[in-house]
Amino acid sequence: MLLINAIGFSNSGKTTLLEVMAKHFSSQGKNVAVIKDIHSEQYQPEKEESDTWRYAQAGAQLVVGRGMQDTVFHWRHSQKLLEILGKVSADILLVEGFKDERMPRIVCATEDAQLVKLVDAHTYCISGVISEKLQEFRGIPVYNFQRDLPKIIELAEQKSTRVE
Amino acid sequence: MLLINAIGFSNSGKTTLLEVMAKHFSSQGKNVAVIKDIHSEQYQPEKEESDTWRYAQAGAQLVVGRGMQDTVFHWRHSQKLLEILGKVSADILLVEGFKDERMPRIVCATEDAQLVKLVDAHTYCISGVISEKLQEFRGIPVYNFQRDLPKIIELAEQKSTRVE
Repeated sequence: MLLINAIGFSNSGKTTLLEVMAKHFSSQGKNVAVIKDIHSEQYQPEKEESDTWRYAQAGAQLVVGRGMQDTVFHWRHSQKLLEILGKVSADILLVEGFKDERMPRIVCATEDAQLVKLVDAHTYCISGVISEKLQEFRGIPVYNFQRDLPKIIELAEQKSTRVE
Repeated sequence: MLLINAIGFSNSGKTTLLEVMAKHFSSQGKNVAVIKDIHSEQYQPEKEESDTWRYAQAGAQLVVGRGMQDTVFHWRHSQKLLEILGKVSADILLVEGFKDERMPRIVCATEDAQLVKLVDAHTYCISGVISEKLQEFRGIPVYNFQRDLPKIIELAEQKSTRVE
């Protein structure tokens, strides 16, 4: 399983980049999984007053909705990345927003000041909004998700973590 | 793990019964999980235009949202009950709406005609809306979730499936 990790501040272009990568790999017939870290106190995964929401309110620690085309598990605690990885099986795993994990990563940004904060020894590629105006930063290539997608994919396949 | 299974047609009172049971067992400090079978073509587990929804639309087979108090796995296929059970760990597992599984069950109903269709050799208790007007059916007790909760719990603890 190839684990491609993108981090960056809000609205830097992480989701758009990973969405394009999800489409790319899915269209090749690969099994794609995505993990998104949601930094929001307001995150409410269920529709209010839905039956699954009622079960969560009633104190259930896990609520599973088994639909006709979907299966949703809602655990009422925040799991660590490693705990999540133990439950995931895919060809390509796209990971968004886990800033503190030490692993190869793509940094998305809107401006240089963000790069100064986020680019580290694990960073092999820069992308996001800043790719409209910058081509390189500290020797790391800045790629645009529209213009340079093949280059981003190639780098990601070389540099990303492989987990089995 | 005690697996308590309730079935019945729409609006027969399944969710209300299991919700009350979830509150009861949670208030005792037990770890409660719930699995609900959702018979609806319209079931859309994610909010439209949310980032996790975008990943699902992009072809991801699994989308995980890791919040500050929640972790949600959305698999884009309908899993069999056995597959789901393999991922669940709890003291009490409440299961709603799996009509075709052969295991001990509570039947919820609004009228006799529904009981005729659903009550079988696995049925140890009847509940739901019909408990307002009926006390017994083919020798099986009909219990009301408000008036008779202790009796429903006692029967469920005696008769339900135990899975380890």
